Amino acid sequence: MSEHAQRLDRASAVTRDSRGRLVTVLHPDYTVFGVPNGGYLQCVIFQAVRAELGEGDVMAMSTNFVNAPKVGPADLEVEVVRRGRRVTFLRVRLSVEGRVATDSLVTWGSLEEGPARYQHSTSPELAPPEVCVSAPRIEGMTLHGALDLRVDPLAGPWWESPDPTRGYHETWMARRDGTAQWDALSLLFAADCLWPATVPLGSSGWVPTLQLTTYLRQRPRGAWLRARQRCEVVVGESVDERCELFDERGYLVADSQQIALVRFDDEVVRE
Amino acid sequence: MSEHAQRLDRASAVTRDSRGRLVTVLHPDYTVFGVPNGGYLQCVIFQAVRAELGEGDVMAMSTNFVNAPKVGPADLEVEVVRRGRRVTFLRVRLSVEGRVATDSLVTWGSLEEGPARYQHSTSPELAPPEVCVSAPRIEGMTLHGALDLRVDPLAGPWWESPDPTRGYHETWMARRDGTAQWDALSLLFAADCLWPATVPLGSSGWVPTLQLTTYLRQRPRGAWLRARQRCEVVVGESVDERCELFDERGYLVADSQQIALVRFDDEVVRE
Repeated sequence: MSEHAQRLDRASAVTRDSRGRLVTVLHPDYTVFGVPNGGYLQCVIFQAVRAELGEGDVMAMSTNFVNAPKVGPADLEVEVVRRGRRVTFLRVRLSVEGRVATDSLVTWGSLEEGPARYQHSTSPELAPPEVCVSAPRIEGMTLHGALDLRVDPLAGPWWESPDPTRGYHETWMARRDGTAQWDALSLLFAADCLWPATVPLGSSGWVPTLQLTTYLRQRPRGAWLRARQRCEVVVGESVDERCELFDERGYLVADSQQIALVRFDDEVVRE
Repeated sequence: MSEHAQRLDRASAVTRDSRGRLVTVLHPDYTVFGVPNGGYLQCVIFQAVRAELGEGDVMAMSTNFVNAPKVGPADLEVEVVRRGRRVTFLRVRLSVEGRVATDSLVTWGSLEEGPARYQHSTSPELAPPEVCVSAPRIEGMTLHGALDLRVDPLAGPWWESPDPTRGYHETWMARRDGTAQWDALSLLFAADCLWPATVPLGSSGWVPTLQLTTYLRQRPRGAWLRARQRCEVVVGESVDERCELFDERGYLVADSQQIALVRFDDEVVRE
């Protein structure tokens, strides 16, 4: 294994095959238990739209995770529903071996340059990265090889003992894929790459995403992001999670929400 | 004009025409400046999926607002992308006169029954509805005829003087469409029916939605909802807004986010 993960822009690259179809190869460095990660798949979709439209940025992307894809060849179908002067609306489907893996709506325009007139949330207060601790690697989450994730020593170790009131965690994030700066593409990955916010609550195993919506809000600056991942409601077998990403200026640069399935260890014990 | 607005379930009803196509008639009681409201359109889409699948509920719905529709006949195209035992993934397009108005992804399953294992947000603290004041009706927003909206007297009148720090408002909501209780269908309307949260900041005129995602989280109970509508970031010409809806038990029952375009009076003055 190389020191760094495959560069995200290369691992998510989209090209045209001899018949003109958009194709990619889903990369093993961006998986969770063998399944390509949702944020990484949104990077691939971003690149497919770039290949089709030539320029612009994601303003919003919503994805239904229809069937879990596997690493290897995949193809993309981009439908431009309406091309506008300021905003273009698209639908993109990613398929593996002829089976739809993800179905996305894309709202395409241009990213704003800050500062914001108004911003509700403030970035997490964390000790500087150099005094923070690396959170443990979870086996099977290869995507964390592409990241340097650091947790405030005062906040941990939330991964050791469940706390029913702690439906969140906060993290420094830098890249370890041979690229120093965050950009619009990598924000899509960053917005869905952390441990589920149900882990501090004691959830078990994988928390598979059903639907993910990411908003890119501003062009990020710098090598470090501060992330806040939290649950909104955990009820029955579902959770809605949010992730907020702040750049080195404290600007909220991306914001995601998702619906996922979830199980808890105490439920397993009850069975 | 009758005392009540047309009942929401009837105003959003979907039937099949003689050729078996799903059709509706977009109703004038649910418009903003003549354009059918986004939350109302999501109710129509919900009914189209019910007509196709027979049972179940929206877990998540994401909509791109592709072209502003007008009131009158519209037709719907429902594509079942994958039918699952627990979750079904769909795409629904609503068209008026052959032109796509909205393009939606739907994540379909069953709504949970509370209480939640974990809930992050608590419901707004408002004086009881009987001592609250009605917020002013905005001309051209016919959708507010279907609602009884009441604001805490201590919170107002935010509609009179802009405050650059007040990117939110909180409201009691009851129905005035001849139906007493909130249900899953009407939550989709409730999640996108309030004044934009940019109004207290001093935004001008209409704030057209580009993309709206609503999560229904629990089956609501009671005649009153408490709503919190807020901006996340206002930057350049865009805003991302959130709406949280709590039922009479204080359960968070729905949660929406949207990207919209926005303008401010002070920008107009500068021109």
